[in-house]
Amino acid sequence: MKIAVIGSGAVGLYYGARLKRAGHDVRFLLRRDYDAITAGGLTVTSPSGDFHLPEVKGYRDTSEMGEVDLALVALKTYDNDKLAELVRPVVGERTAILTLQNGLGNEELLAEAFGAGLVMGGIAIIGVNRGEPGTVHHLALGSIRLGEFGGGRSPRALALAETFNAAGVQCQAVEDLRRVRWEKLVWNVPFNGLCALLNRTPGFFLAKAESAALVRALMEEVVAGANAQGLTEPIPASFITDNIERTVTHTADYRPSMMIDRIEGRPLELDAIYRIPLKHARRHGVRMVRVEMLLALLAAGEQER
Amino acid sequence: MKIAVIGSGAVGLYYGARLKRAGHDVRFLLRRDYDAITAGGLTVTSPSGDFHLPEVKGYRDTSEMGEVDLALVALKTYDNDKLAELVRPVVGERTAILTLQNGLGNEELLAEAFGAGLVMGGIAIIGVNRGEPGTVHHLALGSIRLGEFGGGRSPRALALAETFNAAGVQCQAVEDLRRVRWEKLVWNVPFNGLCALLNRTPGFFLAKAESAALVRALMEEVVAGANAQGLTEPIPASFITDNIERTVTHTADYRPSMMIDRIEGRPLELDAIYRIPLKHARRHGVRMVRVEMLLALLAAGEQER
Repeated sequence: MKIAVIGSGAVGLYYGARLKRAGHDVRFLLRRDYDAITAGGLTVTSPSGDFHLPEVKGYRDTSEMGEVDLALVALKTYDNDKLAELVRPVVGERTAILTLQNGLGNEELLAEAFGAGLVMGGIAIIGVNRGEPGTVHHLALGSIRLGEFGGGRSPRALALAETFNAAGVQCQAVEDLRRVRWEKLVWNVPFNGLCALLNRTPGFFLAKAESAALVRALMEEVVAGANAQGLTEPIPASFITDNIERTVTHTADYRPSMMIDRIEGRPLELDAIYRIPLKHARRHGVRMVRVEMLLALLAAGEQER
Repeated sequence: MKIAVIGSGAVGLYYGARLKRAGHDVRFLLRRDYDAITAGGLTVTSPSGDFHLPEVKGYRDTSEMGEVDLALVALKTYDNDKLAELVRPVVGERTAILTLQNGLGNEELLAEAFGAGLVMGGIAIIGVNRGEPGTVHHLALGSIRLGEFGGGRSPRALALAETFNAAGVQCQAVEDLRRVRWEKLVWNVPFNGLCALLNRTPGFFLAKAESAALVRALMEEVVAGANAQGLTEPIPASFITDNIERTVTHTADYRPSMMIDRIEGRPLELDAIYRIPLKHARRHGVRMVRVEMLLALLAAGEQER
């Protein structure tokens, strides 16, 4: 399968590396890591075994990548105004476009540019950070759930899930993409924001009663916002407890992407993770007051762009 | 008048200095500034004119201070478990005890120890910071409103207000002490907490639409909590707008006491400014959700004591 990985942060590099290792023709759009990867290949450290890919196809521009079967989009959403333009050169009539970007609004942008029929979305439940150029550190978890933008478990989605599974990535095709998008927000909304805001990892907030209650209250707001969207199946309250327990076990010391974005002086993904979900919730009559407050605190620290 | 200033942070030093300069016998309980002040006196820089008091009575222990007419309490509230014990040596049958401490719960503690009849409280609307030992910087504003713990504009309260006015401190005796305590919380709750949390001054939060709206929403919660207490007169909505405008004009770059407490590694006054007001509001059926959230974020960063 010809695959273009567009957006080679930690998530793009990691899944692209797994797919390449399974024998696919994977082409990476690279910026920071271009020199290191084209010269020396790509290294993945992982609890399931480190590996090195000595020869990796890297590109500086999508116009050089050629048409592919799968466009795997893993760009930061704060560059979404350039998203369609960037993806266009690799897209043909039968290209599947899978966005693993954070938050809400990404499939909509791609569907507007390429038609809803090409677009799929997915969420990655993974702890992964970039290391030195040419190295990505897989820390914990790693599964993907993907689905059609238009909904329904299509043959194409099932086949793509199988492709990931064969590459050592647990993957499931889901009926309702919106549901899994919102499910991921249940974690991302509290922890991306809180960790970026105070430069602390999730365990810090779960260690004290008042802030642990705040994490739970933020999650409850997101679940209420989600369940107002008319999902195929509502998110149950137990999802919150499970999510917190999984965080304590697996990602208490993990630095969420937004925390790293702030440390490294990049913009934060406030539209995808906060503003668009807030708008969707409000449209269905749900006010997420604490989420609004977290957004306001994060927005106060952003530079004008 | 014999006056004991108990708690010689910026507020205690400043008002004590004004009273001494007006001719009163002012005795300061000193810790950090003991050596500097007993050796070299006390310097006040102020927009209304700098002054120096060469001979200042300083004490390390209230047991050496003698009985006074007025005990001016300006201690940090996080030491309130030792409050009564500390004040006791200066209190006689006719001593007025005036606490200018932050937040709620201070008069109650003093009343429990000495009887409600001795206790008055007040709020200082002032921008004042400590400088080098022996120096206090008066930056802006400076007025006091004081009243009886038991309520009502007593002859004693009116006389004390007159004493302050004669010393160059604008002072008003009020009918309803609880109202002015809550009025001050309308500023302290958002700005003490936000500034301490992100290590930024008030202007930072008022500069962007989302965070300025958050400041206003926090103030609205406090006003709702206040007006549920059955004050003699409710706090009007216009109070919030005036307060924000005054902040922009006078204290946009001011570092609130809680911000300085956090910078200097001291505990924060979370009980007086957050937990006790939250309890009072909840008792009258008002949930201050954003205030709770701010408390949770602040509490997460506190050391166990």
